Amino acid sequence: MESLIKENERLDDLQLKGLKLIQNPQWFCFGVDAVLLSHFAKSEIKKGANVLDLCTGNGIIPVLLSAKTEAKKITGVEIQEEVAEMAQRSIFLNSLTEKVEILCEDLKNAPETFGKCSFDYITCNPPYKENNGGLKNTEDTVTIARHEIKCNLEDIIRASEALLKPAGKLALIHRPERLIDIIYLMKSYRIEPKRLQFIHPSAEKTATMILVEGTKHGKPKLKLLPPLYVHDENGEYTEEINKIYERGTE
Amino acid sequence: MESLIKENERLDDLQLKGLKLIQNPQWFCFGVDAVLLSHFAKSEIKKGANVLDLCTGNGIIPVLLSAKTEAKKITGVEIQEEVAEMAQRSIFLNSLTEKVEILCEDLKNAPETFGKCSFDYITCNPPYKENNGGLKNTEDTVTIARHEIKCNLEDIIRASEALLKPAGKLALIHRPERLIDIIYLMKSYRIEPKRLQFIHPSAEKTATMILVEGTKHGKPKLKLLPPLYVHDENGEYTEEINKIYERGTE
Repeated sequence: MESLIKENERLDDLQLKGLKLIQNPQWFCFGVDAVLLSHFAKSEIKKGANVLDLCTGNGIIPVLLSAKTEAKKITGVEIQEEVAEMAQRSIFLNSLTEKVEILCEDLKNAPETFGKCSFDYITCNPPYKENNGGLKNTEDTVTIARHEIKCNLEDIIRASEALLKPAGKLALIHRPERLIDIIYLMKSYRIEPKRLQFIHPSAEKTATMILVEGTKHGKPKLKLLPPLYVHDENGEYTEEINKIYERGTE
Repeated sequence: MESLIKENERLDDLQLKGLKLIQNPQWFCFGVDAVLLSHFAKSEIKKGANVLDLCTGNGIIPVLLSAKTEAKKITGVEIQEEVAEMAQRSIFLNSLTEKVEILCEDLKNAPETFGKCSFDYITCNPPYKENNGGLKNTEDTVTIARHEIKCNLEDIIRASEALLKPAGKLALIHRPERLIDIIYLMKSYRIEPKRLQFIHPSAEKTATMILVEGTKHGKPKLKLLPPLYVHDENGEYTEEINKIYERGTE
């Protein structure tokens, strides 16, 4: 097993059904975003579903969804070769190669690669920051993961519309500052936003993350979920967050 | 003063600078919506501003804004003749006729009446419910006030875009179920949503109202305000709500 882990990498125990994940802390490590997105998505991913995770990074979302859902197949698409290669090793390490596949690919080409109307559910934890043209290291691994360099929100939503089966769903986690763009682009590409949840650091603070799910060609009717607070008034994790993180029970 | 109040009407003291409002409880009485919307709008209404209130009803928003802002002129537009007439009496009663004007008019004709690019700020507390075609009493005063019979969201946003000066602002209060439509329509008519606030009955409950402000031809950048909770854990009004309602100090 040692040989699967390269220098600068570490192996983390996900404390969920014995799953592990290879991460390179010099690039990035998965955070609460990935956990929240997979929790948000799991209730809508049906048994036998064909699932796609765009901007999959170290593969955390496919790995989590493999344990949390009864999806038939989960495919992760990652544009950065060295990152995709690391994710592939995590899949191998977890003996998930039959259920989970990682492809190194530009998501803009995904509809051609996989064929249109191929997926029941798409997840994406995309780069959050807009590329305002002031970036210097646009070939840097971390910069690419955080900024809209290789793809932007419209690329993701356009590709998702092509890739989803009719009534298929797209779930995104993003920053509230981009809510307007997300809603406008989803509507423009006929992915109707149907579920929305705001994540607040605590009840008295403004939301810092949003979860949005849209249905391809769905009828307009938004369900606003109750807000999710990460910490309570004593700075402890809330009951709900503990529940989402509860290991081994999902 | 007696003669100004008709049968079935009542005169309410707004406890704000001695202002009063004539209401007909058989039609509708103003609620927390009007108070929240005028509070939300007031910080952005500058001295000398030309303000328009669409779907003004009994005129509560123009009356509140006359006290809360230094607007030069506030015009309320109401399509129902008997409701507009009642609002006019409230304006007269409060000696506000120089500052506030109520017009009985279809807002769809407002750009022609007032001229394009005439207003700095527009407020609207519109009918919340979509007209799904199943309504029977479409000429009933209350039904018209609550359902999109005489105008819908698109009419309001289209008219507002025409009526606003460049960089002028439109503030709406509505139900969260319509958030997607509001954002999509504002974007479509180039009114960029810039401020958004969710109103929750209490911290643990889902939002039941939203406040949205858009800027005509504004640059994309949403400011999500901290959520507003109406009641605390003991069922009492929160400090913030008490502050918004604080009489005589604004």
